[in-house]
Amino acid sequence: MSWNHTAVTQALGIQYPIIQAPMAGASPPALVAAVSNAGGLGSLGAALMSADEIAQHIKEIRLLTDKPFSVNLFAYQPQQVTVQDMLGAYQRLQPYYHQLGIMPPLSQALPKIPTYEEQLGVILDACVPVFSFTLGILPHKWIKALKAKKIIVMGTATTLREAKALAESGIDMIVCQGAEAGGHRGSFLSSAIDSLIGLMALVPEVVDAISLPVIASGGIMNGRGIAATMCLGASAVQMGTAFLTTDEANIHPIYKQALLNATDDSTALTRAFTGKYARGIRNRFMQEMASEHECIAPFPYQRALTSKLRKAAEQNNQNDFTPLWAGQGVSLSRVESAGALFNALVAETVAAFKQANG
Amino acid sequence: MSWNHTAVTQALGIQYPIIQAPMAGASPPALVAAVSNAGGLGSLGAALMSADEIAQHIKEIRLLTDKPFSVNLFAYQPQQVTVQDMLGAYQRLQPYYHQLGIMPPLSQALPKIPTYEEQLGVILDACVPVFSFTLGILPHKWIKALKAKKIIVMGTATTLREAKALAESGIDMIVCQGAEAGGHRGSFLSSAIDSLIGLMALVPEVVDAISLPVIASGGIMNGRGIAATMCLGASAVQMGTAFLTTDEANIHPIYKQALLNATDDSTALTRAFTGKYARGIRNRFMQEMASEHECIAPFPYQRALTSKLRKAAEQNNQNDFTPLWAGQGVSLSRVESAGALFNALVAETVAAFKQANG
Repeated sequence: MSWNHTAVTQALGIQYPIIQAPMAGASPPALVAAVSNAGGLGSLGAALMSADEIAQHIKEIRLLTDKPFSVNLFAYQPQQVTVQDMLGAYQRLQPYYHQLGIMPPLSQALPKIPTYEEQLGVILDACVPVFSFTLGILPHKWIKALKAKKIIVMGTATTLREAKALAESGIDMIVCQGAEAGGHRGSFLSSAIDSLIGLMALVPEVVDAISLPVIASGGIMNGRGIAATMCLGASAVQMGTAFLTTDEANIHPIYKQALLNATDDSTALTRAFTGKYARGIRNRFMQEMASEHECIAPFPYQRALTSKLRKAAEQNNQNDFTPLWAGQGVSLSRVESAGALFNALVAETVAAFKQANG
Repeated sequence: MSWNHTAVTQALGIQYPIIQAPMAGASPPALVAAVSNAGGLGSLGAALMSADEIAQHIKEIRLLTDKPFSVNLFAYQPQQVTVQDMLGAYQRLQPYYHQLGIMPPLSQALPKIPTYEEQLGVILDACVPVFSFTLGILPHKWIKALKAKKIIVMGTATTLREAKALAESGIDMIVCQGAEAGGHRGSFLSSAIDSLIGLMALVPEVVDAISLPVIASGGIMNGRGIAATMCLGASAVQMGTAFLTTDEANIHPIYKQALLNATDDSTALTRAFTGKYARGIRNRFMQEMASEHECIAPFPYQRALTSKLRKAAEQNNQNDFTPLWAGQGVSLSRVESAGALFNALVAETVAAFKQANG
């Protein structure tokens, strides 16, 4: 076998086993298409979109590429939330609204959250090549419906137990999300904190225990990381942070700057932005909320409460309230086009193998 | 280059870039010698020993092997501890002493702790081939003294900043301890919690930033992990947990059984056993002390207060008070001789490279 001929490249019909991670809010069609056109698999992070928005984004991707791509959702059931929960969270945030001089969202009105069932309908209709999900297990009827349309289905595991549960659910491939990864933790069987397993431990044990192809994700930033995960037994890598600083990612300049300034110990886990644990670069809001677990509304309602703060602060060029999602490899971020990064990754992987055991 | 010809194998004069991690209390001369005789580098975890014990252990190792080996210490200055601190910790533990029907240690008497300066004297006299340290930076006079005796010096980093500080201190090689690793966290510039960087992120950035050989440690349990870390740019691996279940490690049977029953999400960090954060398999004591940060004496005094509990419980075959140090790769533990494990690791590494990019 050569590193670019694996179970994943074969099943997906792609040239290199490199997947751009779905990043809700930071994976516009231009990025998805650039990665797919370069020979990898681009992914649309659609978790926070309405069904209509997803349909529109898929259309745009298809205008930009005829190669396979993926769409990702959060496979979770929203927690019951009470007006009390919302009020507690809202009261904690009120001083920030005051400081920024903005009108708070009405605490009584629970925001409308699209369910993944509504979102999945569009994805089935569009018959996308690949569907991936995180934060849970997909009910059997959906797996059946996706497979009937020949859509390849990937689920996300953060522990061996989660990988086994996903394998039994009948999906096609497992994304192993290591503790290093930026953004939301995919954990669903234990707490996010108890499920922080590094890729070096997670991948070999999952590869030994289950027969599905494994995609490794978390802290991989260059060809060294790609070659390493292939040695661990993975059939592909999924990289998010590395693509965040590409031209196509189109994130706010203050976010990009934070990525370029960060080092390995700049990140931490927080629930403060959305209600669910995610890894990002520490900023003012993360630090001030670090020990205030009781004043955070459940996912995704906390996001509805904090997004106005984010927008207002960003208009002043302050990243105090921006979720600066990033993995632990962030210090190796580089600014270039997604295509140029992709080509560099391929060349580096070849070089890494040669250097290690040439 | 081939994977077994690296800057580390050349400098140490060993056949394979595989180092058995120093494990205080679990690396007897028989284990150290078995690994060195197999072509790797065995390491004596001497941090908790008196100077006399260290001298005795080095003598025993030299009776068993004429190959290079390493001795490891904790390069830290004990924190100031007050009788108040000790009393608070002691009072929290009193119900356990009572339950186990044992006499508590006298809370007033601060136990005598050997300083690393006393310990280093013996190591210099014995002129060991390799000296490694963790938990800090070694003052210049000691590095100079070690180098004058041609002793190769390795320090331990958990972040890029620590790696840079160690490189500037004039040592020869850097051990990168990933978040996956079992036992004590080596962190010394940030808190142990803020320095939990996975190897997949840590190794490539350190390799890019400093010119010293890098040894990767944490979660590596088989040839897949070894091949992977070499691709990341490491010049050797250091493996602890994998050697704990070998015949030579000679740990208590209840500890060995816990290792063989554990899975990736069985471990967590705790200060309850020694006063410093370390990763081990969750047991009763860890769980009951999880949120009681105020009632823990500073390192290593907490160890003096808890070791009687450990011994008493172990006599009843209970692991409730045993520090079950283990890395996150623990589910891949195997029972065999250290030499047989070592030979398997070498064969697996060759196979892992072939499978990934053969």
